[in-house]
Amino acid sequence: MELRHLAWASGHRVRILDQSALPREERHLELATVEQVAEAIERLRVRGAPLIGIVAAMGVVQALRGDEPRAEAMDAVRRACERLRATRPTAVNLAWALERTARRAARTPGDGAAIRAALIAEADAIWAEDREMCHRLGRVGAALVPDGAVVHTHCNAGALATGGIGTALAPIYLAHAAGRRVRVIVGETRPVLQGSRLTMWELARAGIPCTLIADAAAASRLARGDVSCVIVGADRVAMNGDVANKVGTYALALAARAHGVPFYVALPRSTLDPAAASGAAIPIEERGRDELLDPAGWRALGEVAAAWNPAFDVTPAELVTGFITDCGVLAPAELARLVG
Amino acid sequence: MELRHLAWASGHRVRILDQSALPREERHLELATVEQVAEAIERLRVRGAPLIGIVAAMGVVQALRGDEPRAEAMDAVRRACERLRATRPTAVNLAWALERTARRAARTPGDGAAIRAALIAEADAIWAEDREMCHRLGRVGAALVPDGAVVHTHCNAGALATGGIGTALAPIYLAHAAGRRVRVIVGETRPVLQGSRLTMWELARAGIPCTLIADAAAASRLARGDVSCVIVGADRVAMNGDVANKVGTYALALAARAHGVPFYVALPRSTLDPAAASGAAIPIEERGRDELLDPAGWRALGEVAAAWNPAFDVTPAELVTGFITDCGVLAPAELARLVG
Repeated sequence: MELRHLAWASGHRVRILDQSALPREERHLELATVEQVAEAIERLRVRGAPLIGIVAAMGVVQALRGDEPRAEAMDAVRRACERLRATRPTAVNLAWALERTARRAARTPGDGAAIRAALIAEADAIWAEDREMCHRLGRVGAALVPDGAVVHTHCNAGALATGGIGTALAPIYLAHAAGRRVRVIVGETRPVLQGSRLTMWELARAGIPCTLIADAAAASRLARGDVSCVIVGADRVAMNGDVANKVGTYALALAARAHGVPFYVALPRSTLDPAAASGAAIPIEERGRDELLDPAGWRALGEVAAAWNPAFDVTPAELVTGFITDCGVLAPAELARLVG
Repeated sequence: MELRHLAWASGHRVRILDQSALPREERHLELATVEQVAEAIERLRVRGAPLIGIVAAMGVVQALRGDEPRAEAMDAVRRACERLRATRPTAVNLAWALERTARRAARTPGDGAAIRAALIAEADAIWAEDREMCHRLGRVGAALVPDGAVVHTHCNAGALATGGIGTALAPIYLAHAAGRRVRVIVGETRPVLQGSRLTMWELARAGIPCTLIADAAAASRLARGDVSCVIVGADRVAMNGDVANKVGTYALALAARAHGVPFYVALPRSTLDPAAASGAAIPIEERGRDELLDPAGWRALGEVAAAWNPAFDVTPAELVTGFITDCGVLAPAELARLVG
């Protein structure tokens, strides 16, 4: 399975698969400026916590021509990091990757050419580490996916969301590759439909049986009794184990608890936020009301009619059976092992 | 508030507001044959458990010209009831209204003219009783909606779903009419969007503040702590208090329980099914996969990719705080008071 959803183009421009056009069209874009990269993140052309970290690191490279004096280059890097960090608030991988990029620039001696080369190497390192992290998570999580398993997931925490084989879907890809029969139940993930547009797309390409449901059908799907476990990704995990992930994750966790279905969260280390003691410290992005109103056909709404459109919710740690990490399946109290 | 969503047209044809076109267009249709009425129910041009009962009763009238001999008229009525009953399986009001219509025909002496006149009178009676029932429910439920209340609802159990002021929304309309400030949180209700297309439409017309959310955001909305109660309608309630209602109701009930928010179900007597001992006896309609795939832009899906699209789910009685009925707010064990 090779999705070719991220690449360096000539001149180290950023080549992305425009995920906002899937599954209707497989359209690739080449991004040559910081602003183009920022716009692609804001408009969800690239999305997924690990992926936007990688893309942001590649985006900072666009700030440099390579012929700047050092002071000018450092200033350009600083402004690029500021712009890119402001694109989306919830996924901590974005801030993490940009901080790492800024530190690499600061410790690299020389002028724009040297700094640019170092930032390309840093972006490559972040990407390579993410790819490796996905595989390590996947090997840990695959033990939870026996032959005949039915795994329920939400949103897209697959290959499209990362630089590798995904986080939540990594165990499924490896179980499938090992010859086990697996079916994936996929919540469509309104309002942006990352489940029906992206997860169904990549699973179908990989030949893995998958069943699309409305998000509102998740509880009754779990009530049927044949779901082996729930596996979702995360945009930010607090140190107490509270999980910020795509809106709907919390309801899914409540339903899993009601039916005794194990609820797992797969996360690379970059998704854990040492600065967040609990979910209360995690900023939740609210997106525009048109994401909700447009599909219903609203052209105008009076003053009495509003919309509330949070992109994420917080699932309390107590609902999480375990965290699938490169250190094994951890309890909330064990998350500190991922730090330092 | 006058929605004019149902009327007799000349010659006792059925005039409906095509709810499938809302909010984009307020289009009225005149239905002159049983098949046209059946098609309107199947395609959700009219929907809502009480409303489709009324429309079905009006639909049987279309089977008669009024000049048939008795045997021919009775045969036409029987075939009309069969066709209309097959349109949708879950809402019991449909079967209830058709049985009542068939009984009225059977006990009416004379030929087609007399039977047709009796069926018009019966449909009028069903409609008038529903209108009165909505008001009685509303008066009972309004006591649960104090000044400043925030009421969370799902799907559309409003005026558009009934022949009156709705079931779940009736308490809200009467509280609003009494001068109380009320805000309604409305789940958009994928895949057909009855919440965003219909409930938002009728509440905004009535000048009642309303906030649209994705279904998946219901749990985090309840977690904010300012929702006074949840009120939903029902398509069929079993004698033990299990509730079949639009898919997503069960998840909403689980989230309400998790946050200590009272969860009420408003029902006219015609929604209680004496033949259903529990929710396990209620058939759950499954609709086509295109309702899920089309919005995502899928043109084709391989054999590995499926969809599961139940229109309803079953909320266990234990999650229901109370049933808002014309006999007061009842506990599950008290529902038998509505029968006989």
